Amino acid sequence: MTERVVLAYSGGLDTSVCIGWIAEETGAEVIAVAVDVGQGGEDLDVIRQRALDCGAVEAEVADAREEFADEYCLPALKANALYQGEYPLVSALSRPVIVKHLVAAAQKHGATTVAHGCTGKGNDQVRFEVGINSLAPGLKCIAPVRDYAMTRDKAIAFAEAKGLPIATTKKSPYSIDQNVFGRAVETGFLEDIWNAPIEDVYEYTQDPAVPREADEVVITFEAGVPVAVDGRKVTVLQAIEELNRRAGAQGVGRLDMVEDRLVGIKSREIYEAPGAIALITAHQALENVTVERELARYKRQVEQRWAELVYDGLWFSPLKRALDGFVDEANQHVSGDIRMVLHGGRAVVNGRKSDRSLYDFNLATYDTGDTFDQSMSKGFIEIFGLSSKIAARRDLA
Amino acid sequence: MTERVVLAYSGGLDTSVCIGWIAEETGAEVIAVAVDVGQGGEDLDVIRQRALDCGAVEAEVADAREEFADEYCLPALKANALYQGEYPLVSALSRPVIVKHLVAAAQKHGATTVAHGCTGKGNDQVRFEVGINSLAPGLKCIAPVRDYAMTRDKAIAFAEAKGLPIATTKKSPYSIDQNVFGRAVETGFLEDIWNAPIEDVYEYTQDPAVPREADEVVITFEAGVPVAVDGRKVTVLQAIEELNRRAGAQGVGRLDMVEDRLVGIKSREIYEAPGAIALITAHQALENVTVERELARYKRQVEQRWAELVYDGLWFSPLKRALDGFVDEANQHVSGDIRMVLHGGRAVVNGRKSDRSLYDFNLATYDTGDTFDQSMSKGFIEIFGLSSKIAARRDLA
Amino acid sequence: MTERVVLAYSGGLDTSVCIGWIAEETGAEVIAVAVDVGQGGEDLDVIRQRALDCGAVEAEVADAREEFADEYCLPALKANALYQGEYPLVSALSRPVIVKHLVAAAQKHGATTVAHGCTGKGNDQVRFEVGINSLAPGLKCIAPVRDYAMTRDKAIAFAEAKGLPIATTKKSPYSIDQNVFGRAVETGFLEDIWNAPIEDVYEYTQDPAVPREADEVVITFEAGVPVAVDGRKVTVLQAIEELNRRAGAQGVGRLDMVEDRLVGIKSREIYEAPGAIALITAHQALENVTVERELARYKRQVEQRWAELVYDGLWFSPLKRALDGFVDEANQHVSGDIRMVLHGGRAVVNGRKSDRSLYDFNLATYDTGDTFDQSMSKGFIEIFGLSSKIAARRDLA
Amino acid sequence: MTERVVLAYSGGLDTSVCIGWIAEETGAEVIAVAVDVGQGGEDLDVIRQRALDCGAVEAEVADAREEFADEYCLPALKANALYQGEYPLVSALSRPVIVKHLVAAAQKHGATTVAHGCTGKGNDQVRFEVGINSLAPGLKCIAPVRDYAMTRDKAIAFAEAKGLPIATTKKSPYSIDQNVFGRAVETGFLEDIWNAPIEDVYEYTQDPAVPREADEVVITFEAGVPVAVDGRKVTVLQAIEELNRRAGAQGVGRLDMVEDRLVGIKSREIYEAPGAIALITAHQALENVTVERELARYKRQVEQRWAELVYDGLWFSPLKRALDGFVDEANQHVSGDIRMVLHGGRAVVNGRKSDRSLYDFNLATYDTGDTFDQSMSKGFIEIFGLSSKIAARRDLA
Repeated sequence: MTERVVLAYSGGLDTSVCIGWIAEETGAEVIAVAVDVGQGGEDLDVIRQRALDCGAVEAEVADAREEFADEYCLPALKANALYQGEYPLVSALSRPVIVKHLVAAAQKHGATTVAHGCTGKGNDQVRFEVGINSLAPGLKCIAPVRDYAMTRDKAIAFAEAKGLPIATTKKSPYSIDQNVFGRAVETGFLEDIWNAPIEDVYEYTQDPAVPREADEVVITFEAGVPVAVDGRKVTVLQAIEELNRRAGAQGVGRLDMVEDRLVGIKSREIYEAPGAIALITAHQALENVTVERELARYKRQVEQRWAELVYDGLWFSPLKRALDGFVDEANQHVSGDIRMVLHGGRAVVNGRKSDRSLYDFNLATYDTGDTFDQSMSKGFIEIFGLSSKIAARRDLA
Repeated sequence: MTERVVLAYSGGLDTSVCIGWIAEETGAEVIAVAVDVGQGGEDLDVIRQRALDCGAVEAEVADAREEFADEYCLPALKANALYQGEYPLVSALSRPVIVKHLVAAAQKHGATTVAHGCTGKGNDQVRFEVGINSLAPGLKCIAPVRDYAMTRDKAIAFAEAKGLPIATTKKSPYSIDQNVFGRAVETGFLEDIWNAPIEDVYEYTQDPAVPREADEVVITFEAGVPVAVDGRKVTVLQAIEELNRRAGAQGVGRLDMVEDRLVGIKSREIYEAPGAIALITAHQALENVTVERELARYKRQVEQRWAELVYDGLWFSPLKRALDGFVDEANQHVSGDIRMVLHGGRAVVNGRKSDRSLYDFNLATYDTGDTFDQSMSKGFIEIFGLSSKIAARRDLA
Repeated sequence: MTERVVLAYSGGLDTSVCIGWIAEETGAEVIAVAVDVGQGGEDLDVIRQRALDCGAVEAEVADAREEFADEYCLPALKANALYQGEYPLVSALSRPVIVKHLVAAAQKHGATTVAHGCTGKGNDQVRFEVGINSLAPGLKCIAPVRDYAMTRDKAIAFAEAKGLPIATTKKSPYSIDQNVFGRAVETGFLEDIWNAPIEDVYEYTQDPAVPREADEVVITFEAGVPVAVDGRKVTVLQAIEELNRRAGAQGVGRLDMVEDRLVGIKSREIYEAPGAIALITAHQALENVTVERELARYKRQVEQRWAELVYDGLWFSPLKRALDGFVDEANQHVSGDIRMVLHGGRAVVNGRKSDRSLYDFNLATYDTGDTFDQSMSKGFIEIFGLSSKIAARRDLA
Repeated sequence: MTERVVLAYSGGLDTSVCIGWIAEETGAEVIAVAVDVGQGGEDLDVIRQRALDCGAVEAEVADAREEFADEYCLPALKANALYQGEYPLVSALSRPVIVKHLVAAAQKHGATTVAHGCTGKGNDQVRFEVGINSLAPGLKCIAPVRDYAMTRDKAIAFAEAKGLPIATTKKSPYSIDQNVFGRAVETGFLEDIWNAPIEDVYEYTQDPAVPREADEVVITFEAGVPVAVDGRKVTVLQAIEELNRRAGAQGVGRLDMVEDRLVGIKSREIYEAPGAIALITAHQALENVTVERELARYKRQVEQRWAELVYDGLWFSPLKRALDGFVDEANQHVSGDIRMVLHGGRAVVNGRKSDRSLYDFNLATYDTGDTFDQSMSKGFIEIFGLSSKIAARRDLA
C-alpha cells in the first residue's frame, strides 16, 4: 500500500507546494490538514479545496478555536504564563492543538508520517515533532523546508511549473504567525536589534500614542476562568476575542523583545497579544486578592517553569501535566470581579471584588475597626529574625 | 549612667513627640538620627534643630542619598527586584540604610536601645528590628506607637502640653513613605479595594492619560550599573533622579496592588516609582541581549527570592549576601545601550546595542549570511524529546 | 455556661497535671483527648480512666493508627519527605492528625480552647497552634508549660498535693516522642554536639554493628502506595510496622543530626525511623525507574518544599494542598517491585521490576538489540551546547 | 599544512586504534594526550611511548591529579553535589579537566579538531564536546566510535592488521571509568535491572557485610575545604585518597542506581566512591552546624541545579560560574571538625566542633542556662500562621 503523509496545511504558498513536493520526494500520498486556531484569513472550505487542487488525496479542515481557547489558552492564563516574564506563548500554545489534529488525522487515514512547514532553526519544529512523538511515538516527522531544502525560490518555481492554483507573488517582508491569542512578527530590518519597530508591523493593536477615550471593563472570573465581561456571560474564546478588540483598540499588548530560543540562539521578536495581556493582568490582580501568600510565592516559580516547558515544546510532557495539577488547585478560589482601564497601551487594574477574598479590611485598616493584635508583633519579629541574629553574632565577631 | 536611646527621627509630629515620650517612659536620654534617602522636604539642619528643641540630647543628620543609591538601589536594579512581580521595594530598600546609620549612632553614643516610629502591623517594624539585630545583636528595640500605645491623638495632646515646636494639624488622610527610589501611599478610602485611586494621591508622576510629547532616552549600563543617560555620565543617584523626572513626567511607574505583607495580611498599596521602573525595564532588556539562556532562567528565580528576602526585612541575612554574589556574577556582561520611549505611562524599549551581546545576527537571520546549521536540528529534537517520547509510549499504551 | 478546654492528653505526668492546672488557671472544664498514632505504651482505656481520675469532665481516646498511616505517613512517602535531606518528619507528621482529633472534640463538646503540653521553644507548639488555627480559626490555644510556667518540679508538687493517680518519679534523662513512623530522642548529654549517642538512646533499632544475617525484602508499590511485602498484601500501616520490625532488627534508620528549628535555633536530634527510611529508599528507587527525567528533577524541589512546610507546621496550608496535587500526579506510575537487602544499618536496593518502567533495555544496552540512533547525538550536542558556546566566544575574546 | 587532531588518549585498545583510524579517515596528523586524574593503571611514560608507537606525531601526558582534586572535586564537595541525590558525579567531574588539557594541547600544536573515544549514546560525548565548544568555540570534535562506526571488532582487526603494540584480548565484560573521586561500572548482566550486582564488580570498596573493626576519623574543614584528617594536614587530593582507602576498606560508598542520562534514556549504573561519599557526608554535617537556616534551605536547591548542570556537561557554562559564586559564599564559615565512624558500609557522623558554629547551647538546652525567651513564641505563632488562618476562615466557610 502507498505510504501516506499528513501535512500541516495553511493554505499558503509554502505548504501548498509541500503537497506535491512531498509526493515527489517520498512517493507518498499527502493528506492536508488545516486547523483554525483563530488566525483569520480565508474560509476553511476554500483552503480545503485548494489542498485538493494542489494534489492532496484528502483534505481535512477543523475549527479548533473553542478547543484552543479552552484547553490551551486557559491553562496558560491560569498559569499567568509569560516566557521571560513577557511573552504569552502565542505560537507555542497553538502548536500542541494543531499536533493533536494532525495525529488524529494520521491515525484515521493510516499515515506513517507527519510533515510541517517549519524551518530548522526555530522553536516550532521542536514543538511539532516533540508533540507528535509524545502523542504517537510511532509516527515519523518530516519538514521539507529543513529536510529537503525547499527554499522559497524553489517553491515558486515548483508552483509555476506545476500550475498550482496559488499566487506566487514576491514574499512579504514579514514572517507572521497569528491566532486568537496573539500575533508574532519577524522581519529583516528588525534583525538589527537597534532598529525600532514601525507602525506597519502591527495589526491586532492600534497605535497607543494616539489620544482616544479610555475604555473601562469589568472581567469576572470563576476558579481562574474568565466567565463574564461587563456582566455578560462569555466563553473563554469570547473573552479573548472581546479583549483583543477592546484592548487592541487601546494599543495594549505590544511586545518588542530579544528572546532565548530553545535552539540556543537569541532572536528579536515583535508580538501583539491584547486579549492575552489584558486577561493575564486581570487574573494576576485577582490572584493577589484570593491566593494565600506562600502559595502565591511558590506559584510564581511554577509559572516560570510552566512557561519554559510550553515554550520548549513540552506541552505533552509528564512534568507539564503535574504542574497543571498544581496550577488548577491554586486557581480554585480565584473568583471575583476585576475592574480595569484600557488606555494608551496600558491595561491598569483599579478595583477588585471577590467573595473568596483573603483581603480582610479589619486586619488591614488603620482606622476604626482594626482587629490586628499588634502585641503579637514583638514575638514574631524576635523569632522570625533569630537565625539571622545568631549568624550576625558570629559574623560580626 | 543614664541609658541612651537612639531614635529614627523624621522631623514630623510623631517622632518629635517620641523624643519626650521615650524619655518619660524609659528615663533614658534620646538621641535623634535623621537620614536623608531622598525623601525631600525640610532641610536637614532644620530637622536637626527641631530634634534638639524637642528634647533630644544629641541630634545627628546624614545625607545618605548616594549611599542609598549605590549600595541599596543598585543591587535591587541588578536583581530586577520586583516583589510580587511589581513592587520595586521602595520602602524595603531604605530601611537597611537607615538601620546602618542608627546602629552607628548607637555605637558612637553608647546607646543600648534603638527606637522607631512604626506601628505593629506593618513590614517596616520587622525591617528595622531584624536589621538592627543583624548588625548589632546586643541592641534592644522599641516602637512607642506599638509598645507604648502612642496614638496620634495622644501625640497631639503631648505636643501641645509640652509646647513642642511642631505643627499639630489634623492628620493628612495619606500615610506616605518616600525616597529617591519611589513613593508609597496608603489612605483610608483605598482600603476598600474596589475604589480606584484618584489623581490627588500622586506626586512623583503626572497623569499618563494627558496627551503630551513622547520622550526618548538612551541609558548606558556597564556590568549592570547605569553609567550614562543620553551619553552624559551619571552616578546611580543621578540616573534615578533624572529618570524620576523624565519618566515621572510621562506618568511611568504608577502601581496599584494588593500585596502580601510579611505579618500575614493583605494590604492595598499605591506606589510611584518612575525612575526605578524605567531603569529596571531597561536593565531587563539589556540582560535579554547579554545573559546566556540558562543563567537568565535561573536568575529569574533568584530575583524572586531576593525580592522576597528584602521585602521580608532580611537585607543583612546570610542568604541575601550569597544571592548578591550570584547576581553580581550574572551582571558581569550586562553592558551596552538601551533606547527607550517614555510616553503615556509606558517605558518601552525599542533598541539595544552591546559589545557584550549574545545576539548573533548571522545565527538569527533568515536572510543572506545565515550560519545556523539546520541539519543539526533533527538530532537535537529527537534526543531532546526522547524522555517524553518514552513516557508517552508507556502512558498511551 | 462554664468554658471548656480540650487538652491533648498523653497519660503522662505533665498532661495529667495539666488537667487540674488548667482548671485552676482558667476556671474551665477540661476534656482530655488521647490519640494513638502508634506510640505504644499503655492501653487507651487505662489512659482514658486516668484522665477522668485526674479531673477531666470528659475523656476521649482514638485509635488513629490507620488514619495516621494512610493520610499522613503515605503523603510523606510519596514526597520522599526528608527535612534537611535526612529527617522523615516523624513528629511533624503526627501533629496534624492529633490536631484533627482535638478540633473535632472541641467542636463536639463546645470547647472554646485547645491546650497542649509543648514548651515555648520547640516546633511542636507551632504545629499544634497553626494547625488548630487552620482547622478552626475561632479556637484559642494555650500551652501551660509555656503560658503558665508549669515546670516539671511544679507539676510534681501539684500531683502530690492533689494526690493524682500518676507516678511522680524523677524525670527520665530522655525526652522522647514516638509514633509508628519513628522515634525522636533528646537528652542533656547530647546537647554537647561533640558527644556521640550511646546505645541506650535507641529502642526501635538494634545496634547495626553487631554481625547478623541479612534480610532480603521485596516491596510492591501501586501508584506510590506500598501494597505488598514479600508478596503478602499489606495496608500502609502494616507495611510500616513490618519494616519497622525487620529494618529495625538490622539497625536501619538511625539519624544523628543538628537541625534547623522553625523557631530559629539549631538543635541536636537523634531519630530512629527504620520503616520510614526503608520505605522511602525503596520508593525513590522505584521512582528512578518510572518517573520521567524532567518530572523527577522538578519533583526533587517540590519534595524539599513539602518537607519544609510540614516541618514548619503548615500541614493544613493552601500551598501544602497544591503540592500534594503535584506529588500525587507524579506518583501515578510509581508501580512495581523493589528488592532490598536490610543489613548492618543499610537498606540497599538491588533490584527493580515494573510494568510502568521507563527503563528501556533496547535503548540502554550496548549489546545486541541496541535501538538507540547514535547519529542523532551530533545534532543534539551542537544545539544543546549552542548558548554556552556563543557565550564562550564572547567571554574568551 | 597537514591538519592536526588532538586525541583524548587512554592507552587502551580503542584509543590506540583511533590514532591510525583518524589518520586514515581524515588524513590528519594525530596528537595523543593522556591525562592522569587518578585512574591508576600504567605509568604515564609507558602510555606516552605507546601512543607514539601507534603512530601519533606527538604524545603529551599530564599528571592532573592535584588540579582535578582542587578545581573539580572540591567545588563538587562544597556543593554536596549528588546527581539524583546519590551520584557524586565521578566521571562528569573528570571530563572538564581532561577537556582543558585537550584544548591546551590543540592550541599549542595548532590542531583544528579534538577527538574522543566516546560512543553516541552516553553523557560523556556531550561533556567532551560542549566543554570543548565552551573553551575553544572554533575547534571541531570527532568521535570515531560514533562518527566513523569504529566498533570493537573493527578496532581489533585494525590493530592486528597494523601490528599495533597493544593487546587485543577479548573485551572485559565490564565497562569501567575511574578516577580519584570514584569508579563507574556498567556490564551486560546488570542491564537487567532486577539482577543484583556481584562482589566482582567492585574494586575501590571491600564487602561491607564482612565483620571488621570500625574506623573512626576526624576531618577538619576550613571554609568548606578539607584541610586535615585526624589532625594531620592534607591537600584535597590526599584527603580524598586517604578516605578512599579508609572508607573503602569499610565498604562505604557503593551505589546501585537507575539514572536519567542527558540523552534521554535511563541506564543502570554501579558506582564506588568511598572518599567522595565520606567527605560529602562530613561536609553536610558541618554545614548543618555552621550555615544559617534560610541559606541552607536555598543552598539545597542550588546544589541540585549545580549537580544537574555538571552531569549535563555544562561545567564551563555561565550559570555554573554564577552558582559557584553562591556556593563559595555559603561555604565561608564551614570550618571545624567532624568526627565520623566508618563501618559496615556506613559513614556516620557522631560529633561536630566548630568555632564558627551557629548551634547555641544556651538557646538549645532545656536545662540550666536556657536563654531562649519562650514568651516570644505566642506572637510568632500567631503571625507566622496568620495567612494560613485567614485562608482557613474562607475555605472552611
